[in-house]
Amino acid sequence: MTRRDDTWRARFPALAMLPEAERGLLAERTVPMALPAGTTVFEPHQACGSFLFVRSGQVRVYQLDQDGREIVLYRLGPGSICILTTLALLAGDRYGAFAVTETPVDAAALPGRSFDDLLGRSPRFRSFVFAAHAERMVDLMRVIRSVAFESIESRLAARLLTLAADTRALSITHQQLAAEIGSAREVVSRHLKSFERRGWVSLARNRIEVKNAASLREASGSSGA
Amino acid sequence: MTRRDDTWRARFPALAMLPEAERGLLAERTVPMALPAGTTVFEPHQACGSFLFVRSGQVRVYQLDQDGREIVLYRLGPGSICILTTLALLAGDRYGAFAVTETPVDAAALPGRSFDDLLGRSPRFRSFVFAAHAERMVDLMRVIRSVAFESIESRLAARLLTLAADTRALSITHQQLAAEIGSAREVVSRHLKSFERRGWVSLARNRIEVKNAASLREASGSSGA
Repeated sequence: MTRRDDTWRARFPALAMLPEAERGLLAERTVPMALPAGTTVFEPHQACGSFLFVRSGQVRVYQLDQDGREIVLYRLGPGSICILTTLALLAGDRYGAFAVTETPVDAAALPGRSFDDLLGRSPRFRSFVFAAHAERMVDLMRVIRSVAFESIESRLAARLLTLAADTRALSITHQQLAAEIGSAREVVSRHLKSFERRGWVSLARNRIEVKNAASLREASGSSGA
Repeated sequence: MTRRDDTWRARFPALAMLPEAERGLLAERTVPMALPAGTTVFEPHQACGSFLFVRSGQVRVYQLDQDGREIVLYRLGPGSICILTTLALLAGDRYGAFAVTETPVDAAALPGRSFDDLLGRSPRFRSFVFAAHAERMVDLMRVIRSVAFESIESRLAARLLTLAADTRALSITHQQLAAEIGSAREVVSRHLKSFERRGWVSLARNRIEVKNAASLREASGSSGA
């Protein structure tokens, strides 16, 4: 509809290729949303009838086990669609996933009825949605491989490097780090202390500073982050 | 089309509710397949353009990590559709999943083009397909929780009971059991020997006999199988 809508579709190259009528429908039926960091955008039992297109910012998707332990499943960045809505409508409560914004997020919400309407009309839109499903399955399979077969030390080192990125210093609790790698807080604390003894990190309350990225990279078993 | 087709649709209640024209299309375009046990029905790099509806029998879906270690992801029984085809077409090689028949399987194959045609025409068919995606995401999330947070002993005990079902005796290698619970063969062997010492199982070459299901059930941390 507007220039703003054109801009956000640039984040979704697959949607920019939709025929004019379908693009019009998408622009017309979506509602822009500006979400502050820390907003829960999806949770089980929540009546959520819209599909969220992430234009900018980042959303963390995680599950809780029955003892309330969290495991991070994947993150959605610009150009992603949150498919939890479909899954929640169809798999109901058994799909115990949560989604929360980690940064301010600019999104567009498409109501469920319009979503299904577009799915029916548009083979390209179907491809886009199924590709999103495929990406998320790939994400979950990666988590499974990692938790089943990589050592805690390697997972922890890799995640510290990814999360720290260029900053070297992380504001994060040991509990949160445990959720990142699918482990328990005590286990993470023990390994962090061992990293500190080796001079790879320095630890303060809710804060971890990376002192030796090269050693962490070696421990992560990877040549990159 | 035929009585045979009517019979198999009875396995798929959601599809039996399709309008007449869509049911006709489905019957007309699907090809029956009788697959012996041990047939690979899906693997990465394989040009697989059809969607498989399982009418009877069981298919095991697993992934391999880069060292060739296997992890069982889920099983498809009667009434299931194998969604790997969509994912492979869209996520390509990164979706390293395999599917193999564990028993003789009677299936119906729907070519990709007809699948997409039905998706476009039929809201009910879309619901059916998205519900299958949702089920598989739930399966993968269950594997993640189990591998991250349940002890090897508990996962092994639970899986022995599930696999043995009414038979008490299992023909299975330690390697295969490791794949079932996402662990390593040596770890499984060690725990099986410990189970044997406690009188819960007896071990022979490629064979495990359940001697004390109640203790296994207790170790599995569950009141059922």
